[in-house]
Formats: sequence, structure tokens, C-alpha cells
Amino acid sequence: MSHDLLIRDVRPMGGAPVDILVKDGRIAAIGKSDAAGTEILEGGGRLAIPGLVEAHAHLDKTLWGMDWYRNEVGPSLRDKIDNERRSKRTLGIDPARQSARQVVLSVGHGTTHIRTHVDVDTEMGVEAIEGVMATRAALADLIDMQLVAFPQSGLLVHPGTHELLDRAMAMGADVVGGLDPCGIDRDPKGHLDVVFGLAQKHGRGVDIHLHEPGEMGAFSMELIIERTRALGMQGQVVISHAFCLGMPDPAAVDRLIADLADARIAIMTTGPASRPAPPVLKLHKAGVVVGSGSDGIRDTWGPYGNADMLERAMFVGLRNNLRRDDEVEQALAVCTTGGAAMMGITDYGLRIGAPADMVLLPGTCLTEAVVSRPRDRIVVKRGTVVARDGEAFHQVN
Amino acid sequence: MSHDLLIRDVRPMGGAPVDILVKDGRIAAIGKSDAAGTEILEGGGRLAIPGLVEAHAHLDKTLWGMDWYRNEVGPSLRDKIDNERRSKRTLGIDPARQSARQVVLSVGHGTTHIRTHVDVDTEMGVEAIEGVMATRAALADLIDMQLVAFPQSGLLVHPGTHELLDRAMAMGADVVGGLDPCGIDRDPKGHLDVVFGLAQKHGRGVDIHLHEPGEMGAFSMELIIERTRALGMQGQVVISHAFCLGMPDPAAVDRLIADLADARIAIMTTGPASRPAPPVLKLHKAGVVVGSGSDGIRDTWGPYGNADMLERAMFVGLRNNLRRDDEVEQALAVCTTGGAAMMGITDYGLRIGAPADMVLLPGTCLTEAVVSRPRDRIVVKRGTVVARDGEAFHQVN
Repeated sequence: MSHDLLIRDVRPMGGAPVDILVKDGRIAAIGKSDAAGTEILEGGGRLAIPGLVEAHAHLDKTLWGMDWYRNEVGPSLRDKIDNERRSKRTLGIDPARQSARQVVLSVGHGTTHIRTHVDVDTEMGVEAIEGVMATRAALADLIDMQLVAFPQSGLLVHPGTHELLDRAMAMGADVVGGLDPCGIDRDPKGHLDVVFGLAQKHGRGVDIHLHEPGEMGAFSMELIIERTRALGMQGQVVISHAFCLGMPDPAAVDRLIADLADARIAIMTTGPASRPAPPVLKLHKAGVVVGSGSDGIRDTWGPYGNADMLERAMFVGLRNNLRRDDEVEQALAVCTTGGAAMMGITDYGLRIGAPADMVLLPGTCLTEAVVSRPRDRIVVKRGTVVARDGEAFHQVN
Repeated sequence: MSHDLLIRDVRPMGGAPVDILVKDGRIAAIGKSDAAGTEILEGGGRLAIPGLVEAHAHLDKTLWGMDWYRNEVGPSLRDKIDNERRSKRTLGIDPARQSARQVVLSVGHGTTHIRTHVDVDTEMGVEAIEGVMATRAALADLIDMQLVAFPQSGLLVHPGTHELLDRAMAMGADVVGGLDPCGIDRDPKGHLDVVFGLAQKHGRGVDIHLHEPGEMGAFSMELIIERTRALGMQGQVVISHAFCLGMPDPAAVDRLIADLADARIAIMTTGPASRPAPPVLKLHKAGVVVGSGSDGIRDTWGPYGNADMLERAMFVGLRNNLRRDDEVEQALAVCTTGGAAMMGITDYGLRIGAPADMVLLPGTCLTEAVVSRPRDRIVVKRGTVVARDGEAFHQVN
């Protein structure tokens, strides 16, 4: 699907108008270009930004496109986890179909890369991994995708999950997932030893959901930092959510952030309105990589979300009270370069040699794009226009 | 502009399909209706909700429709207030033009009622009041509007403001505004005595911006409650923002909420992601009226906002972690019936006799409407269709 294209009159990151020449799916030149015979895409003065990065999704269990699910779930985390595990069968949530639906939705908004956490548990086994891998293969021209083998129901509390995660990694999952070592498994050492053990065995990175707030979360975070250093896994570990970094103890938070920077551990934040949240500006200042993602959208956990990472940049901005233009630009960077760095993607960005993955959209500047979230977007994946006006050209039943 | 209309096949609040007959701008019948000769609007099975209520706007100072303003403002509240007062002249923010632009934007999204806080200060005098009153007169067929005379720059710290507020009320402002009695004026008793004194003099209600967090905000809130009771102003007082109700001291918050309920003081919350926020479900349970609003949109304070109160319902839901359908419905109620009650509008709702102010929109249920925020909306004001697909039929230069 990769090919040649001359993208005319666009403003990379809101700068001066240029042409971008794409050869064989990669950016070959940026500037005034005269490539006779090349197919032309008129940018009409649009902004150009690199493809949006959905660095934390749950593609296998969205209800997008299914009948409306009336949520009457109880308040605890356990209620939601147990309800979801039951609902997968009763509602018929097919991981292959649902992940494809969400990918197509994401591409419509301008996402070119997705990291998705895929449930692995003793009820469904690795069925969801198989389903999402089928989607990855089927939609490879639309999206670059990483799978995290994710023990959503807990790891040690459901014996057999360790072996299933091992199998998922052997099948081709890219990253070992983990979840609230204290809160869910009630055995932080045991949980993290399994997660990091699998990462070592398969030579892969780690991405751990850490919802634990305050001191408990800080303790789990310290255990993760210790293991990252001891195993030489700097640059291969992500802590998702990291609510503990929003705790009201600046000295403790500063110490954790310094250690995260030193261990080159990246943070994923959705910019959650109702929870303590990692401070993005402070993390950036310390040199910590920050990515973002939609988390679950329209699933049995809650009805919100539309997989639009430009809207997500707005949420990150609102959550962090980013008002100045230079601050809102940092929120957008979280949803582009930050997510790419978090995912370890080096082949990314509006630069010569990188794949031509980009979004063209109206607006005078990047901040206006974030706050307006225009529907008028042209999405380019490896030099091919794959979506316009919010709709990917690919259909899923 | 009021007239007769038969709205066919709509589902009030997501219920069973009915017809709604409008006579002379008011709802005359709900049910199967056969009004031969009446103009017909086909609802096509859409949801019908009462008109959205924007219960806290700053229409006079939005930059909507003006050149992009690059925000490089300092971090303090004073920085933002002083920068704004200067910018009004340098940027040429015309209150009449800008308020009209935002009204038209709001109507496009389905808003039928607006309460706007209008700056009154010693630099601009009552110029903004005049401008917004001109808009209210010009767009009376589109919107019902209340003006709050608002001392944005402080009251006692800028001598002469008291007299200007008095003048604004005499000119036809509906409500006396106030602002952070401790934080800005540094004299809570003095500030509140002026605000409540003007309310008594003019026989009007009060709406006070209270950003003060924690114990300081609780103290100011107590002073407001005391005056409300002493002056017999139950049901006429609103506290906007009320961040102190989000403080991490459940016993203190519960006590304040009980007193607010007893004094029939309403709360306005935007569902702010980066600040402590009033707990909506708890307030509802205690019988406190809660409305919501956009606050400033795209102004010198920050770039966010689009005046869509359906999106605002989503923000209220996200901020309060409302996930169950019955909870999200409460977030929508804040942006409809709650705002109307907060503004003291009794002539409101999808019921016989009330003005035919409503929004028709696709979706299976109210929660889906909130989380999807469809662009496809038909907005009816006093029986006349005034907007479709996000665009009001009225243009403003």
C-alpha cells in the first residue's frame, strides 16, 4: 500500500508552508519540491502533525458498534472486573471484530500507532490475543500495533494465568502487562517477579497498570523501579495511570519522578478527571517520557470515549491545567512523540526518512487544533490517504 | 417568532415515541396528536430533551471568531485578571459582538437559556453590560438570558466598583455577582455586605464565584450561608465553582452540604478536571440544586471550550466518575433541569404548558447522547426550529 505522494502546501507543526515528498511510503523531502509525475495531495495550508499515537487502548473489549449496554455495575474495581469477565460471553464481545472496529474508528481520527492491552485470563485463555492478532494482520496497512498480554483479572489470584501470559508472549505479544501488584494480587513481590521474569524470558518490555493511589502506589512504583535497574531494563518499562504521582506530597512525588527519569521508565496518563494524575509538565521537565491513551472506550466499565487522541490531548491539557499555548503543545506532544517514545518506536515523526504517517488538519496553530478537534482531517499512513473527515476508508462489519 | 408546530415521533427523555403539539410557542399536548393543518416537524424517532441550560458563561469576553490569541499569561489568578483587563482594549474585544457570537454558537448546540456573568469594573464601567443587553434584545427569539453584574477585578480593591454594580443593576442586570471574598478583596465581610446589600436594594438574587479552596473557601461559604438565612434569601443564592466542596474532609463537606440544602443555595460546577470539585451525586442526594456552565470559552484565560452543554454534561460525568447510566443521566440533568432551577426558571421542561424549548437528537438513550455528543441536533426555541446540525440559522458578523 506504500507509495509515492507529493503533499503540497502544509505547515508542519504550524510552521511555514512546505511540500512533503513521500517516496515508497517514507518522507523523502520537506520543502519546496517539484516531483513531476508524482500523485499530488493538496494540503491547502493545513497544519501537519505526525500520526496520533494511542498508547493505551483495550481494543478487545470495546462495545463500539454493538447494542447499547445499560451500565448498572457496582462501585468497586472488583465489581467491574468480575462483571466484565462475565459479560464477554453473555454479550458476545468478539475480540477480533471489536478490535477491528476500534482500529477503524481510531484511524478515522488520525491515529497511526496503537498499543493495546489484551486480556489474558483463565476463563478466555489467549482467545483475545488471537483475535487482536488477527486484526493486526488484517489491518496492517492502516495501523502499527503493539499487543500487551494483560492479566486483567489478576495473576497470582487466578493460578494458570502465569502460563497463559507465557503462551501469549510466545504467540507474538510484544509486551508483558501487569496490574496493581498490591491492590489486586495482594502480593507485590510475587506479582512483579512473574511479570519481570516473563519479560526477561522473552526479551520484551513491561507495561504495568498502576491505579494504586498514594503511598501504596508509591511503594509498588519503587518495586518496579528497583527491578528495572536490577535487570538493566532502562527504557523498556512503562507505568500506566500512575495515580500515585498525583498524591498531595510534593517531596515524595519529586523523589519518585527523579527515580523514574534515572531508570528511564515512561509514564502513560489518560488525563483522568476524577483521579489524582501524574503531573505532565513536571515529568517533562525531569526528562520522563509521557504518552497517553484512551484506555477503555464504551465498554462494561463505562460509556465514555471515542478513541480521538486529539480530544485526549485536550483532556491531558484540562487535567493538568495547561492554558498557555506552549503548554497545550506539550499535551499534544504527549499524544504524538511522547506515545511513540513510550512505545519504543524510533521510526516516527515529520522528518526525512521516517514513514509518512501524518494528520493534516485546519487551524492556525497546534493549540487551536487541540481545542477545536476539527472533524476535517486527512490521515496519511505510509504515504497513503487512509481517512478523511473522521471516516477511515476501510469498513468493518 | 412563536407559532404552532406538530413534532412527530420523538422520545422524550428516551421514553416511548410520542408526538408533541406546540400551540403559540408552548407545549399543548404530548402523546398521539392529530392537528390537521399544523406545520409538521418529523422527529424520526429522535430523543427529545428540554433545551440545554448554560448556567455560567462569560459572553462578553470570549475571543470566538477573532484572530487566534497566543496565550503567554503568567500562572496566578491576578496575572489572568490583569492581563484580561488590559487585553480588552488592545485586542478590541467588543462585548456586544462577542456575546452575540457565543449565543449563536450556543444555540447551535441546543442551548435555550444562558446566565452570563458580565464584567463591571472601573476601567470599562458598565460598557459590557450595555453590550450584552444589546445582544439580549437582538437575539431574544433565540435565547432567554440572565445577566449577572460581575466585579471580575475585585470590588473593594477598586473603589467605585460598588457604584458601578449598583448602576448595572438599575440598568437591568438580573443578579448581583461576587468573587472570592477572601482571595481577591481580602475582606470577606466587606465584600459580602456590598453584594448582599445590592441584592436587597434591587430585590435580586446573588451568584458568587467562589474559587477559594479548602478551609478558606469553607469559611467564605459559611458567611454566604449566614447572610442567605439572615436576609431570608433562601432560593435566591448561587455559589459558582465552590471548589471547597471538593476538599478531602468528608465531615466538613457533609456539614456544608447540609447547610446549603437547608438555606436552599444552589451550586454551579463546570466539572473542572484540574481543581477540587463539588460532588454532584452527594449534592443531589442532599437536595441541593446543581447547574453547570462553560465558564469562559476561548478567552485570555485559556483556549478551551466550545459552549456545547452536552459536552459539558460529559465533563461533569467524567469529573464525578459517573459511569452507570442512571448516574450519567444525573450529569445531563445538571445541564438541563438543574441549571433551570438554579436560574429560578419555573417555566421550563418537556411538559404541557411550558415553552416548547427542546433539542431533538439521535441515540438510543440519554447516556448515549451525552457520551456521543452528536452533531445532528434539531434545536427548537418556543416552537420554532432555530438550529440544525450544530449551526444556528442566525448569523453574526
